Amino acid sequence: MHDVIIIGGGPAGLTAAVYAARKKMDTLVLTKDFGGQPMWTMDIENYMGYQFITGPELMEKFDEQARRHAENIRYEDVQRLILHEDGSFGVITDQSQYAAKSIIIASGKRPRRLEVPGEAEFTGRGVSYCATCDGPLFANKTVAVIGGGNSALQAAYELSGVAEKVYLVTRRSYSADPVIIDKLQQAANVIEMKGYISKSVQGSRAVEKLTVAKSDRGEETDLAVQGVFVEIGLEPNSEFAKGVVALNHRGEILVDCRCRTNIPGIFAAGDVTDGVDKQIVIAAGDGAKAALIAYEYLLHQIS
Amino acid sequence: MHDVIIIGGGPAGLTAAVYAARKKMDTLVLTKDFGGQPMWTMDIENYMGYQFITGPELMEKFDEQARRHAENIRYEDVQRLILHEDGSFGVITDQSQYAAKSIIIASGKRPRRLEVPGEAEFTGRGVSYCATCDGPLFANKTVAVIGGGNSALQAAYELSGVAEKVYLVTRRSYSADPVIIDKLQQAANVIEMKGYISKSVQGSRAVEKLTVAKSDRGEETDLAVQGVFVEIGLEPNSEFAKGVVALNHRGEILVDCRCRTNIPGIFAAGDVTDGVDKQIVIAAGDGAKAALIAYEYLLHQIS
Repeated sequence: MHDVIIIGGGPAGLTAAVYAARKKMDTLVLTKDFGGQPMWTMDIENYMGYQFITGPELMEKFDEQARRHAENIRYEDVQRLILHEDGSFGVITDQSQYAAKSIIIASGKRPRRLEVPGEAEFTGRGVSYCATCDGPLFANKTVAVIGGGNSALQAAYELSGVAEKVYLVTRRSYSADPVIIDKLQQAANVIEMKGYISKSVQGSRAVEKLTVAKSDRGEETDLAVQGVFVEIGLEPNSEFAKGVVALNHRGEILVDCRCRTNIPGIFAAGDVTDGVDKQIVIAAGDGAKAALIAYEYLLHQIS
Repeated sequence: MHDVIIIGGGPAGLTAAVYAARKKMDTLVLTKDFGGQPMWTMDIENYMGYQFITGPELMEKFDEQARRHAENIRYEDVQRLILHEDGSFGVITDQSQYAAKSIIIASGKRPRRLEVPGEAEFTGRGVSYCATCDGPLFANKTVAVIGGGNSALQAAYELSGVAEKVYLVTRRSYSADPVIIDKLQQAANVIEMKGYISKSVQGSRAVEKLTVAKSDRGEETDLAVQGVFVEIGLEPNSEFAKGVVALNHRGEILVDCRCRTNIPGIFAAGDVTDGVDKQIVIAAGDGAKAALIAYEYLLHQIS
């Protein structure tokens, strides 16, 4: 029986691990993969303490620090969370099962899928969810970016510096910061395609074209592209918690200001929650909060 | 008229400055002094990204980063906050006055004073509020630590490694983490004086004794000490905001999970608020939140 099981190995989870271990809590970290979303980010200028650092470098530092304090970090995929009658919890992973007196969920978000024919087939062979990671592979090629938010426009702008031509395919008008829209519209090689739905991705060995249309049954247009960047938002990794803690309509875990879910003993931090997301320093701060509040919770359980 | 005035130059204020400036907000930072509470901390092991760093070193990095993005940082003492009828704000300092469309208060906390005769007179001449900063000056001397919380016990423990003898003077029983109490009780040169009130500090050029008593009118005992470390907690720097935003009974600014005070357009972050305090990564995370929420607020004001 651990004092706390932390689910997630991104900024929130690793910070929670440092704080929990320094409070001498018996801590287990379970994470599907290493580092979370910052792993897809090549230039970070707003993590305080570093003028400039890449996501993977920063996460290497977080991981080292977490391991120095909390030794028990396992790469396992959490599949179910169980509430026991005595107020303790069970965690079932793809490999084993564990028990704990408290849980901190910090499992983050993942990119939303387009869910069109060809998408899954060509993932990694032209279909990408990370312009920053994969952009350099498309030097002097033609790519499409799908989406109308900040990340999509930022991706299109970044890619315009690398690719020969960038199609920006959006269903509706942009919902992005004016500064980003301005920057984008100054890039001569970006072709804005507003009001288009993406229908399918096609190719032989790798992506060769993206088919779009003005409506579901409208006339189809083929765009000859070698890359398709899907930037239509993020989805919380909260499936294993569904039916256990309260989620909002986007599947984010509802927390109060002290990282508490509706179930005493289960806390949540970072992008998996309904708080302000996508910022490393915010996720880290909330991870620290969650650990300190979990520590207080256990103190009261004992007394 | 600035978009935002940030009051405070500690972890919360400087992080808010980076985030506000990167959103292209016209940002002014007003701060009484440099770096806030981390300046008194010599060893930080739980700021993510640094296995080990001193407070002043970390704050140097925060400051550099803030200045790279937000150029306008002034060392002035904010004395009054004014609400204008059009929803904008005035800020009066000891040197000038400024106007802004929004305010982020991140003015932190300061050590609480004992308020006994001799305390003010001997501050800097034996009376200290920072064992970490001033401890080394008392090698092989006798000192008293006043207070019964985590910081007081931590200070007594640290000083026991430097000073010849440490009196730990507490009014009531300890309210500290068990691990810290254990560590302290293993230190042979710490003399625990429970149930004593501090009455006065005396000396000629520097501190020579601390007078304590079991009650206000009880028999007095003189402790021959060269140093008096006052560790009785922290007070929020919120006087200038009193009567403008809602405070709790401790003088902390009440905020919701999105750093909003009860006045639209005034936000607060870090130790000056009623949130979880005394952690750099938490203050920094909340500083970032406050800036992003202030940005959203201004967007809605414009449209």
